Amino acid sequence: MKTLLKNGFIVRVFTDEISKQDVLIEDDRIIGVGDYSDESVDSVRDMSGKFICPGLIDGHIHIESTMLLPEELAKVVVPHGTTAIVADPHEIANVCGTEGIEYMLKASEGLPMDVFFTASSCVPATPFDESGAVLSADDLRPLYDNPRVLGLAEMMNYPGVLAGDPDILAKIKDAKKAGKVVDGHAPLLSGKNLDRYVAAGVNSDHECSNNKEALEKLNAGQYIMIREGTAAKNLANLKMLFEYPYNYRCLLVTDDCHPTDLLNAGHIDHIIRLASSLGINPVIAIRMASLQAAQYFRIPDTGAVAPGYIANLTIVDELKKFHVTDVYSHGKLVLRNGKLAEFEAPKVPMELKKMVRESFHVEKLTRDDFVLDEENGLCRVIGLVPGQILTKELHEEIFFDRNSGIDVSRDILKLAVIERHKGTGHKGIGFIKGIGMKEGAIASSVSHDSHNIIVIGTNDKDMAFAANRIIEMGGGNVVVKGEKDIARMALPIAGLMSDFSAKDTAGFNARVRNAVYELGTSMDVEPFMNMAFLSLPVIPALKMSTEGLVDVAKFERVSLKV
Amino acid sequence: MKTLLKNGFIVRVFTDEISKQDVLIEDDRIIGVGDYSDESVDSVRDMSGKFICPGLIDGHIHIESTMLLPEELAKVVVPHGTTAIVADPHEIANVCGTEGIEYMLKASEGLPMDVFFTASSCVPATPFDESGAVLSADDLRPLYDNPRVLGLAEMMNYPGVLAGDPDILAKIKDAKKAGKVVDGHAPLLSGKNLDRYVAAGVNSDHECSNNKEALEKLNAGQYIMIREGTAAKNLANLKMLFEYPYNYRCLLVTDDCHPTDLLNAGHIDHIIRLASSLGINPVIAIRMASLQAAQYFRIPDTGAVAPGYIANLTIVDELKKFHVTDVYSHGKLVLRNGKLAEFEAPKVPMELKKMVRESFHVEKLTRDDFVLDEENGLCRVIGLVPGQILTKELHEEIFFDRNSGIDVSRDILKLAVIERHKGTGHKGIGFIKGIGMKEGAIASSVSHDSHNIIVIGTNDKDMAFAANRIIEMGGGNVVVKGEKDIARMALPIAGLMSDFSAKDTAGFNARVRNAVYELGTSMDVEPFMNMAFLSLPVIPALKMSTEGLVDVAKFERVSLKV
Repeated sequence: MKTLLKNGFIVRVFTDEISKQDVLIEDDRIIGVGDYSDESVDSVRDMSGKFICPGLIDGHIHIESTMLLPEELAKVVVPHGTTAIVADPHEIANVCGTEGIEYMLKASEGLPMDVFFTASSCVPATPFDESGAVLSADDLRPLYDNPRVLGLAEMMNYPGVLAGDPDILAKIKDAKKAGKVVDGHAPLLSGKNLDRYVAAGVNSDHECSNNKEALEKLNAGQYIMIREGTAAKNLANLKMLFEYPYNYRCLLVTDDCHPTDLLNAGHIDHIIRLASSLGINPVIAIRMASLQAAQYFRIPDTGAVAPGYIANLTIVDELKKFHVTDVYSHGKLVLRNGKLAEFEAPKVPMELKKMVRESFHVEKLTRDDFVLDEENGLCRVIGLVPGQILTKELHEEIFFDRNSGIDVSRDILKLAVIERHKGTGHKGIGFIKGIGMKEGAIASSVSHDSHNIIVIGTNDKDMAFAANRIIEMGGGNVVVKGEKDIARMALPIAGLMSDFSAKDTAGFNARVRNAVYELGTSMDVEPFMNMAFLSLPVIPALKMSTEGLVDVAKFERVSLKV
Repeated sequence: MKTLLKNGFIVRVFTDEISKQDVLIEDDRIIGVGDYSDESVDSVRDMSGKFICPGLIDGHIHIESTMLLPEELAKVVVPHGTTAIVADPHEIANVCGTEGIEYMLKASEGLPMDVFFTASSCVPATPFDESGAVLSADDLRPLYDNPRVLGLAEMMNYPGVLAGDPDILAKIKDAKKAGKVVDGHAPLLSGKNLDRYVAAGVNSDHECSNNKEALEKLNAGQYIMIREGTAAKNLANLKMLFEYPYNYRCLLVTDDCHPTDLLNAGHIDHIIRLASSLGINPVIAIRMASLQAAQYFRIPDTGAVAPGYIANLTIVDELKKFHVTDVYSHGKLVLRNGKLAEFEAPKVPMELKKMVRESFHVEKLTRDDFVLDEENGLCRVIGLVPGQILTKELHEEIFFDRNSGIDVSRDILKLAVIERHKGTGHKGIGFIKGIGMKEGAIASSVSHDSHNIIVIGTNDKDMAFAANRIIEMGGGNVVVKGEKDIARMALPIAGLMSDFSAKDTAGFNARVRNAVYELGTSMDVEPFMNMAFLSLPVIPALKMSTEGLVDVAKFERVSLKV
């Protein structure tokens, strides 16, 4: 089966040139780029005036952050020109272990884009985390037999690397031995520690927030992934990296993206538009999002419009506006004039499907579960910082004899993290200032990185009700007032993902968010996103685990009472 | 074992920058680049004022063309800053098959530079060649298990690729399957044929002689090896490739280098100096000869001065003059202030040593073996073109009844190619114009690509004597006059390599060459080099095989008589 794309402007990533040429495709491959007007083919498409680019690759994304199943994610990003993503299934791995990764592999097979994975390196993220699974080097090793697994995922545990933790070094060694890459994650790591981290075998970083940091990491030999997602936006600060010679060692990634942003702003195409708007040559941005990504991840025959390459093509009307009209995936026209071709849903074995949908192993809760048997006194309280995921440690007088310690007038609400994977009965209960709810409670099963049940409330009754709604739904977000849920969003797949479309998921997401604002929270706060990070004990200062407060700087548990 | 190189200027190939820094080496690895002045180490060397570059890599060389054993080659190129070469053992493979390749692997183990190989793809080069071995895909496949074998060597048989020859496609496929590269060789191939050749999986080209050709091949996805050796000098014509963005897809190679040039001009360091003299930033040339080569050939952790990289370092006084003072190979100081450290000779198993030294399987010859039983008449005569390896087809009246057809007055000498591998008794005899010898005969066992015995003479007696001297020496070059050898050079290893040092070999080489000039040959002619290509039936127009003349353009045998 031969297809001829005639007279398009070809974006040639080996020379950063554009030339008017035909592209000849046979089955899944490009077999010629040049004058093929006299070639006998099965179909011809006139591409006059269009720009034919290599398909776009997101080098680092957490699918779970989009709250979408891979097939629903494909439906939203393929129309934006994405032909491949490299996903770290870190969240589902924390809930379901390697079976969760297996589920993601199956649930992303045969989509109109390539879904590659990296093996989640830090499950759980810290010893304070009570996750659904603990993944050792032995657990990860077999994953590398799958050609869709391209490496070890972001090695966040850089203290472990520097300390020479044997299991961590084994994870890195195994990836190298299998010929795979090792992604890094080490914000602001510098000097000798950076050298040691890199020398241990960590090939990339996606946490750079300024040029100085990026230059040091480039010189140390790391590839830099320029990140522009919903949560973290680094492009404007890293504009220099689009220049020669830096751009040859840089990729474009989103890391964490919400469905609303994917629908409204776009995906990698959005990053290319943003770069263009800053005066960057779009051809270079396109190369970084295609050839550079494929080379870094060693994806064979991918990332260019050239003979022998897989026919993954993103076709746009114009380079700066980068409006995607057509997409080819492995030689198949999967987007035609903006319309996505139908595709079969991936076939996931029933036992995997069942397993990820039955991820809650926890008893129903009562209001008594939220009561603390403490004397009145000075307590450590988590201080929310709007727009950030780090927190402050506050010291506040808590009156346990009045409304169970909660004081809405001072914005001191109760926070609970309830273990939900193994029925250990562990729960961490404390206080948070800065959410601003005047009534009710909110709960979620999205709470990094272990994804236990996290609840914030103005009273114990609503907190118990909210937590129980999460259990009943098998995961999700809920907003409760007077023991009624006023808004909810089910995330039944591992408590992380919806089974709705991007549009519906974005709609539900907006609804639960707005419902929190109705309870009095200020719109400076992103309630569910902020809450989701209150349990992540790798970001300072004070966080809540299933066994109580953690002082992140000291990397130790601390008591509620000061 | 930790070594600290203090205060050097580091050539940083990830950013094309130079910065003053310390380099910390532990065992065979670089573990830090930065301020390590307070580090406790086993030895410290002050590098103030020196430039520390990644070790230089020659991406394509035929060791046999240097006429040196790998250990003697190392002695001459390591002092020029070479820390790795990628050799195609094409010549010895034509004589000794995979055992010849095995010999080269053993004979290059443990040297103070890395010697990598590619598996010779075209043995023999054509069906007209009567070589010592025929290497099929099945023969080459096991070579890829050796991590020092990096790919399939230059695929010269592009007609075979385009015609879809199954054994050739299998060779390419096997290399890819093993995760290795496929080197190309397709001078001036262009358009649809280039696309098909590249789409078949050929990753590079080292035959580009102009920018237009190089740009087309770059756009087709090939890496370009800029060649500057003894035989072919392409750098000046390809100066553009040192610019951004082209330099990211280009390497520096020598292909064929004579020992005299290695001694006098240098190796890859010479190419860097030459580039600098043309106004090219030496940092870019250094990167092309280090990081780019290592990336193309997928040599792990090689090609940069960065943490985790193998400590292969080339240290120079100054970048433009690029005078090498010190070299580290795998963390060992192998060149110190210009003085090469002694090293143990590689241990080669006796049976391999014996095999390559007993490569002649041919009976002694007599003058009668050179007599042609023909009537006088118009004959095809090979016309030499001074300074080139292509020839012309001339038509000349040959008088077989006078001096056996030879006519010194018209410069029509006799040319013979005598099969010497398997005792087939085949010989091709004809005539050549342009050598200019007035008396005597010359013979050699270096005759591309099959390396049979090639003889040119002014009389049959001296030709027989010369051929027999080659057999007696087990290979070499000889100059004969009046049935005495007036100069000779033994090449007893497969009839291709000397067991002397570079200096001695260069000396012998000069002596045999000058002896030919004493016989009347003009100094426009490089007698042994020119003669060596008269048997290569891939370069037009008329060549001599062991079974007679070959019309290269028609790719068929032709008779002596017109």
